Amino acid sequence: MIHENTIAQANETAVDALRADYNALGEHLDRRGINIERIKAKTATYGVAVPSWGVGTGGTRFARFPGEGEPRDIFDKLDDCGVIQQLTQATPSVSLHIPWDDAPAADLIAKAEEVGLTFDAMNSNTFQDQPNQRHSYKFGSLSHTNAATRAQAIEHNIACIELGAKIGSRALTIWVGDGSNFPGQSNFTRQFERYLDAAGQVYNALPEDWTLLTEHKMYEPAFYSTVVQDWGTNLLIAQQLGDKAKCLVDLGHHAPNVNIEMIVARLNQFGKLGGFHFNDSKYGDDDLDTGSISPYRLFLVFNELVEAERDPNFAPMHMLDQSHNVTDPIESLMISATEVQRAYAQALLVDRTALAGHQDANDALMATATLKAGFRTDVEAILAMARYEAGGAINPIEAFRASGYRAEVSAKRPKVSGAGGGIV
Amino acid sequence: MIHENTIAQANETAVDALRADYNALGEHLDRRGINIERIKAKTATYGVAVPSWGVGTGGTRFARFPGEGEPRDIFDKLDDCGVIQQLTQATPSVSLHIPWDDAPAADLIAKAEEVGLTFDAMNSNTFQDQPNQRHSYKFGSLSHTNAATRAQAIEHNIACIELGAKIGSRALTIWVGDGSNFPGQSNFTRQFERYLDAAGQVYNALPEDWTLLTEHKMYEPAFYSTVVQDWGTNLLIAQQLGDKAKCLVDLGHHAPNVNIEMIVARLNQFGKLGGFHFNDSKYGDDDLDTGSISPYRLFLVFNELVEAERDPNFAPMHMLDQSHNVTDPIESLMISATEVQRAYAQALLVDRTALAGHQDANDALMATATLKAGFRTDVEAILAMARYEAGGAINPIEAFRASGYRAEVSAKRPKVSGAGGGIV
Amino acid sequence: MIHENTIAQANETAVDALRADYNALGEHLDRRGINIERIKAKTATYGVAVPSWGVGTGGTRFARFPGEGEPRDIFDKLDDCGVIQQLTQATPSVSLHIPWDDAPAADLIAKAEEVGLTFDAMNSNTFQDQPNQRHSYKFGSLSHTNAATRAQAIEHNIACIELGAKIGSRALTIWVGDGSNFPGQSNFTRQFERYLDAAGQVYNALPEDWTLLTEHKMYEPAFYSTVVQDWGTNLLIAQQLGDKAKCLVDLGHHAPNVNIEMIVARLNQFGKLGGFHFNDSKYGDDDLDTGSISPYRLFLVFNELVEAERDPNFAPMHMLDQSHNVTDPIESLMISATEVQRAYAQALLVDRTALAGHQDANDALMATATLKAGFRTDVEAILAMARYEAGGAINPIEAFRASGYRAEVSAKRPKVSGAGGGIV
Amino acid sequence: MIHENTIAQANETAVDALRADYNALGEHLDRRGINIERIKAKTATYGVAVPSWGVGTGGTRFARFPGEGEPRDIFDKLDDCGVIQQLTQATPSVSLHIPWDDAPAADLIAKAEEVGLTFDAMNSNTFQDQPNQRHSYKFGSLSHTNAATRAQAIEHNIACIELGAKIGSRALTIWVGDGSNFPGQSNFTRQFERYLDAAGQVYNALPEDWTLLTEHKMYEPAFYSTVVQDWGTNLLIAQQLGDKAKCLVDLGHHAPNVNIEMIVARLNQFGKLGGFHFNDSKYGDDDLDTGSISPYRLFLVFNELVEAERDPNFAPMHMLDQSHNVTDPIESLMISATEVQRAYAQALLVDRTALAGHQDANDALMATATLKAGFRTDVEAILAMARYEAGGAINPIEAFRASGYRAEVSAKRPKVSGAGGGIV
Repeated sequence: MIHENTIAQANETAVDALRADYNALGEHLDRRGINIERIKAKTATYGVAVPSWGVGTGGTRFARFPGEGEPRDIFDKLDDCGVIQQLTQATPSVSLHIPWDDAPAADLIAKAEEVGLTFDAMNSNTFQDQPNQRHSYKFGSLSHTNAATRAQAIEHNIACIELGAKIGSRALTIWVGDGSNFPGQSNFTRQFERYLDAAGQVYNALPEDWTLLTEHKMYEPAFYSTVVQDWGTNLLIAQQLGDKAKCLVDLGHHAPNVNIEMIVARLNQFGKLGGFHFNDSKYGDDDLDTGSISPYRLFLVFNELVEAERDPNFAPMHMLDQSHNVTDPIESLMISATEVQRAYAQALLVDRTALAGHQDANDALMATATLKAGFRTDVEAILAMARYEAGGAINPIEAFRASGYRAEVSAKRPKVSGAGGGIV
Repeated sequence: MIHENTIAQANETAVDALRADYNALGEHLDRRGINIERIKAKTATYGVAVPSWGVGTGGTRFARFPGEGEPRDIFDKLDDCGVIQQLTQATPSVSLHIPWDDAPAADLIAKAEEVGLTFDAMNSNTFQDQPNQRHSYKFGSLSHTNAATRAQAIEHNIACIELGAKIGSRALTIWVGDGSNFPGQSNFTRQFERYLDAAGQVYNALPEDWTLLTEHKMYEPAFYSTVVQDWGTNLLIAQQLGDKAKCLVDLGHHAPNVNIEMIVARLNQFGKLGGFHFNDSKYGDDDLDTGSISPYRLFLVFNELVEAERDPNFAPMHMLDQSHNVTDPIESLMISATEVQRAYAQALLVDRTALAGHQDANDALMATATLKAGFRTDVEAILAMARYEAGGAINPIEAFRASGYRAEVSAKRPKVSGAGGGIV
Repeated sequence: MIHENTIAQANETAVDALRADYNALGEHLDRRGINIERIKAKTATYGVAVPSWGVGTGGTRFARFPGEGEPRDIFDKLDDCGVIQQLTQATPSVSLHIPWDDAPAADLIAKAEEVGLTFDAMNSNTFQDQPNQRHSYKFGSLSHTNAATRAQAIEHNIACIELGAKIGSRALTIWVGDGSNFPGQSNFTRQFERYLDAAGQVYNALPEDWTLLTEHKMYEPAFYSTVVQDWGTNLLIAQQLGDKAKCLVDLGHHAPNVNIEMIVARLNQFGKLGGFHFNDSKYGDDDLDTGSISPYRLFLVFNELVEAERDPNFAPMHMLDQSHNVTDPIESLMISATEVQRAYAQALLVDRTALAGHQDANDALMATATLKAGFRTDVEAILAMARYEAGGAINPIEAFRASGYRAEVSAKRPKVSGAGGGIV
Repeated sequence: MIHENTIAQANETAVDALRADYNALGEHLDRRGINIERIKAKTATYGVAVPSWGVGTGGTRFARFPGEGEPRDIFDKLDDCGVIQQLTQATPSVSLHIPWDDAPAADLIAKAEEVGLTFDAMNSNTFQDQPNQRHSYKFGSLSHTNAATRAQAIEHNIACIELGAKIGSRALTIWVGDGSNFPGQSNFTRQFERYLDAAGQVYNALPEDWTLLTEHKMYEPAFYSTVVQDWGTNLLIAQQLGDKAKCLVDLGHHAPNVNIEMIVARLNQFGKLGGFHFNDSKYGDDDLDTGSISPYRLFLVFNELVEAERDPNFAPMHMLDQSHNVTDPIESLMISATEVQRAYAQALLVDRTALAGHQDANDALMATATLKAGFRTDVEAILAMARYEAGGAINPIEAFRASGYRAEVSAKRPKVSGAGGGIV
């Protein structure tokens, strides 16, 4: 954790400007009939989970360039996640990935309490082979042609649920790398039958109050077909498995040009929107920082979520899922948490009564202008004030850099070698 | 129709080479354990419907360059379609588009009998405004915000069913241009609720033995969102409406890179594959001639269809749906009918027992090689022999050009002006 | 034109809020070390040309749904463009399209003066056939296989230059629909040789101080290949023709996912960036309103332009090029002009010294945050104040709707029929 | 190497069928006016280089699943490449990747002679950090902001040339991972200036008879921009550097939907087509087996190459560049070599006189049918006969599996651990 004084000092130099910006924005919003305090209050309650693996430096199939002071294990990772929450006050929970984060439940709970975090969805891993694993996932896991391999994958998922149940998680997220690289390699239908059967066995092991989130992805690591290639197949899975099964939408897992906000609306309309993996992308599943490429697209997704919030039972899970190759992961996650919060705040500003009126009147120009009025508003002062009032940093990056945290952990954590990649 | 003698003469010059090719292929297939007669027999039964509008020259939003002797009405169109069937023996039916093809049922039946055709699915049109139409479809039809506009669209669809019932059709295909051009223009959920309600009213008007085919499309004419944007939404429609509702897959209506053959497999697995609009494309909904850009993709779709044929109840509808801007429409439709037949014949050649074995053994290389062995085989002699034996032309293009049909109808049909397009 | 009083009255109700917003923003920018007056002054000088054809309602190949009071000829169009300039003070010029806008030069000049406009680049049309045209462009124009067709297209382009020279234009923009729909239809190399030869003849007819702008487009109306498919080919054209030849970048003419701002940078680096057609798109060449889908992408383009402005000779031409299918064209063009101005103002806010420092230090996070700080700022008050001070409307849409202009011209201009489209 | 007897035995069982197929095809082609012996002779001379790294199992950023008997070093790799050439007689050379394949020149030459291979283009590696490397390529290599890093990359490329010169290579291929992950991270123009300066220094070190091949790639490992993003930038590089600099086209490095065959034609027209990396892809840079996804696209590329062959100086370099994740690399490379040879043979069958005639007459249908007639022909017997006559295997996969080579080397080569990947 970062020393309170560091944050306080950083805030001290920034708070006067913040107050001026906040007051000016408050007056402006008041002229638009919006109460800034209400927006701030709602924004302050918004939280997004941090993925435990996100605090390490990512890589591509070509190479990985490790950063300074990378976490050695889940306890280092929780330290880093704690700092993110401390400074942003927007990331109250962490999502674990098993077996990468496997550890005794009591130790996990103790560490999480120490750094002020709780546990979000559990993530299983059947897209890599672990040392001493009996059956390889080279040709699939839950949909593998071999029953023993499927059984091993089912068992692993159930173990994730069991650990999760002990540490207070309430959801399991399944993403598989299953698919094929060649036309004809797999029989699409039999493969999906096997997947449904295996996923059903995992579903049956869910505690009463848990949700099973399945994640679709168009391609990679499979390059001709994936078993859960899009929201259509994901919807079928959720329908087949039952009420506790819902779909997870990763913003980077779609075909080019796809209207993602519409998928969000459709899944929500039919009760199957389970959660999000936030990130951004320009080409494929680039796993770039959320909002870094197309902030308006992110806003449009949140516009759907604010629309859906009218239903009090609406409660999808929100998680970041990014790969940080050229930035300090802690910094990128702090910025990204701020970006989702920003999109939420901007979407809250939309005049929904006016919007509905323009929609009914087919006044396309004014309808879209109504959305833009929300998006265009600079809500930074709202976010910063919410952070400040909650004990976080007005400017998380500045405070983090001033803290010397990265240098401190680098001294303790040995430098990781640059291995990784290895194929052109 | 073309004079029998013309066809006979053209065939006479080609039949020796055909026999030589056919015999050589027969011997080759025999070495591969395949009976050429069986393949020819199955291929000969294959038919694809021709769209009535396909025999006119198409256009883009920029311009339309009319061809010679374009059909003036549905009766001219049926003449042209009759020629296509006469020469290819692969297009026994025609799909009508209302109101473009509206005419007294008795006249339609008489003309169809005269030219040796039957009627395939009916197509409604709620993406254009007709003269004297009460309500405009500028902002949608079945999903319009205005109930009276929706009622008009429903009424039109029911009229299509009624006419279809009289002329022997057994299906209605609905494609709407409904969507939006701006974020916020439409509320996705309310818009889809209206669509489902209206489509349900059309569904309720279906005769007992009819199928309702709904068609999805990613974009165009709507450029930000479409109501039925992909197979996921299309599946939801078919699920909501009932057993007689199924999904139609147009090969050109998908996002870039999407694995279409997999969508075919998924829809079939869940009993919702209703039919096809065949064409090809490189960029968007280019409506190019079937198989002209990616013949292997077409083969992979047929590979799924042959796989699905094992179920005796499997009977999706097959239709061409192309826009012919730079070729003679009759020639393009003849080639395209041949291309779907070719893909079917090639898919029939696949050794499915071997394929399943390679799939089970995760022998990706041999599995895909097994598909390729079918695709690589030059089945032209099979197709030509099937045509020849059924009274068609060994080489339809040569016979058509030799017949003078185009010049003949050009003399009767006045040249259409080059109107169309008009916007950059 | 709209009565001055109408604008004055509309402004009166808005000016107090504007002053408050402007002052608050000024104070905020002052804290960031930015002088708001300097930004406003630069923004106020920014102008983008309106395309004459943009004030008519667009259409798709499926249909065209005409709007009320559509302009009947270039003089009606100039009236509409005059209103856009009057209210936004951001569109001082109009780009003509020949033959659509053909008229005696003196009449054009007189009308332009009447409505306070000048003439931007001339646009030729060789993608449609005109009545009584000798040779058809069905199979191409400047690259046609037939020399006489090429000569006709060259002659038309020279006629455009001649008219342009009389009315004060200084550039010719060439966009051709030439290409092919089938593999093999055209020999790529010979086709491009013909294009270069023909374009060279047009180039030779350019007055000394003119620029020839060539426009690339990936597809449509040609659906397999286009002669000028991308900026690589466009660059070759400009290199082959000479110094007066430069490339025009239309934001909607690229392959999916392409980094357009980088193309802008490359063309500028090598002295070949000639101008822009602004619009927005989600799927293909959707011609949607500028900034309506991806405002950050627009900002990134302007970020390059502000970067390039350091060279005092940098002077690309800016033009809107949109198709308005569901909105009032005047309203869409006003909003779009505002959006390009907004992107320019936001790009001016970027701290370029800090940015260069972060780039040199490979501080990716702070570099991108520096851009975002510009984009995130709500500069509406700057734009509105610039409009207000120049005699325009604080809120152009409100003023336009209050003016009754559309109803007024609708009474004078007969309703156009809904023709257009006509092919599925 | 595989024992001659193994190949002979496998061939013995297949040769009768081959002769029958070959004779039948000869008669068929004779009827089309084509001499099969001429096609076979040209096909037999065609060779494609194998990439040394291709004989190892590839991986993705998620995981790598090692195969049996993976090569430990360049000498094992040359053994494997020797087998590919032995069986296919279509891969006479190997392309080295430094430092992966670094070894004394004399040893490399001796081993190559032993297995019957020569050396194709050299490949440098500045996209990974090597142990004990002074400067990291995390933020770029030839375009790095730091001059010392650029110097290190230049030095490495020159070392590759020096080794290549000793072993008989005549070309250096440069592909860099340089780019950026965030808007603003890099100044596009300054970055490209640095690249051009550094590449120029490498160029200056080229021996007289060498070619410098630069390779463009749209994205990955950089996810917002790459320095050499497309053929336009690649062309600028080749123009700036000089006559010995040419462009390399990797089939998988383009934006979705891009017409690659047209890029091939353009580069060739302007003397800058240097060579190819063959592979196939459905989504991104999937590096799948050549021809496995879109065989017709491969044929269309070869159609351009056969067209260009009329110029006797036309001699681009041909290399496979694939990642084999689920197949035996030797098998995949053998199939892929066969596929490029097949595309070449099919392109040789195209009647170019007839094609040119249809093109001149704008007979799009017959022009494309002329290409299809080549593509549709099953030339397997030609390829197999050419292999057989050269001492290779009629059926390389069968012979390879019968040989026991994989089991043999597996016994000698220790199993590699499954490391790799490690990031979601």
